[in-house]
Amino acid sequence: MDYLKDQAPGAPIRSGIPEHGRIPKYYAVKVGVAELLDELGEGGLLPTERDLALRFATSRETVRQALRELLLEGRVRRLGRGTVVAGPKLEQPLSLVSYTEGVRREGKRPGRRLIGLDRFPCSQALASELQLHVGDPVWHLERVLLADDERVGLESTYVAVERVPRLDTDFDPHSSFYAYLDDRLGIGFGGADERLETVLATPREALLIGTPPALPMLLIHRHSRDTRGRPLERVRSLYRGDRFSFTTHLDAVPR
Amino acid sequence: MDYLKDQAPGAPIRSGIPEHGRIPKYYAVKVGVAELLDELGEGGLLPTERDLALRFATSRETVRQALRELLLEGRVRRLGRGTVVAGPKLEQPLSLVSYTEGVRREGKRPGRRLIGLDRFPCSQALASELQLHVGDPVWHLERVLLADDERVGLESTYVAVERVPRLDTDFDPHSSFYAYLDDRLGIGFGGADERLETVLATPREALLIGTPPALPMLLIHRHSRDTRGRPLERVRSLYRGDRFSFTTHLDAVPR
Repeated sequence: MDYLKDQAPGAPIRSGIPEHGRIPKYYAVKVGVAELLDELGEGGLLPTERDLALRFATSRETVRQALRELLLEGRVRRLGRGTVVAGPKLEQPLSLVSYTEGVRREGKRPGRRLIGLDRFPCSQALASELQLHVGDPVWHLERVLLADDERVGLESTYVAVERVPRLDTDFDPHSSFYAYLDDRLGIGFGGADERLETVLATPREALLIGTPPALPMLLIHRHSRDTRGRPLERVRSLYRGDRFSFTTHLDAVPR
Repeated sequence: MDYLKDQAPGAPIRSGIPEHGRIPKYYAVKVGVAELLDELGEGGLLPTERDLALRFATSRETVRQALRELLLEGRVRRLGRGTVVAGPKLEQPLSLVSYTEGVRREGKRPGRRLIGLDRFPCSQALASELQLHVGDPVWHLERVLLADDERVGLESTYVAVERVPRLDTDFDPHSSFYAYLDDRLGIGFGGADERLETVLATPREALLIGTPPALPMLLIHRHSRDTRGRPLERVRSLYRGDRFSFTTHLDAVPR
């Protein structure tokens, strides 16, 4: 087999070359553009679609399809009317409790923008998760997550009004919810179960985060408990799939 | 605001309803079809595109766009010439070392199909990761991951030939690599660093796993060590984003 000696070990081997059949034209262009990205380096400006079409002797439509995949994967990003080489994805340790700390470790300034704080009667599904009764009042806090003012995610927090009665008047929605719980109410974070999956951004989510529609996102569902083991909150955190990766550490299990 | 009382807590609030502007037509159809999926239940057969177009008073093209997103998200799957309601995603604990054990816990039969076992000279990037010299012989073992004979992922393992000299003759590629290391060579798994991201399937990967092209996938990069702390292998595991979710557990950090 052909092995590219300088290929990064994380890259797919014989990438894009089906065992049977031809390489789709757009994919050959994508591989060609990807090589160009390495030459240009982060922040480098790509040639126009028209120039790329000439360079790869193909149609602008084919170039657009290649660029669209590179955009969805976070290899390039739009800047004004041009397209530039994107930086590496932000790495968030899955072991970290707070978004704030993870973003700081990457040398970025974390921030949040309030979309809405609503109060609604607890639904059946939420009641069993938070150990509440159906109809009990629940807060829904929805915020856009920022890194250096760039919108990178959307976070929905559901918490019983009984636990945090003054959330609407007492809490600065641009700050960390966990810091508020701990500093103001003496409620400590005791642990959480999380489930991570990939989903497509809904039109509303794409609008709020400023992503192309149907961008693959990383969605983390969190159920957390306080230090006394009581259910604390249900969180739905949506991160741009083109901007984030998550790291974790495995320890050997005694066998 | 309008809140749907029976909405699942993991679902987006005011899903698909941009604050400004209209709901895209295809998305309204997608929401309508998603409700229908709940009524039909797992395995239920969807009406034809033609019938859905009549039902939602729209074009077949719009229905196709809605179905395409539901397919990419694993809410429906193709069965013969029809489309049926898909089951829930398989949950894999991120804390588990082996694919075999994770799939068994979900009540499925794990399996693997060999794509290729190749020997090649170690590249620069791989050399630093595996603490080898450039040019040292390295195995590349590539296998499709199966769950109840369904193709659900693709795994590439890179390991020094020096560590497992007889991998080509001694090892059954349908079995667990870790069990082989432990049982036959006395090499124990000592831990690993992992990084998880979402990527689009390449045409070759889509062909090997049997997914639609450009399906969002969950990609896990693993660097593992043996029990003596020596680098063991570099693994690139690609899981169908429409079939898998990963679970993890967070413990409170003393502060």
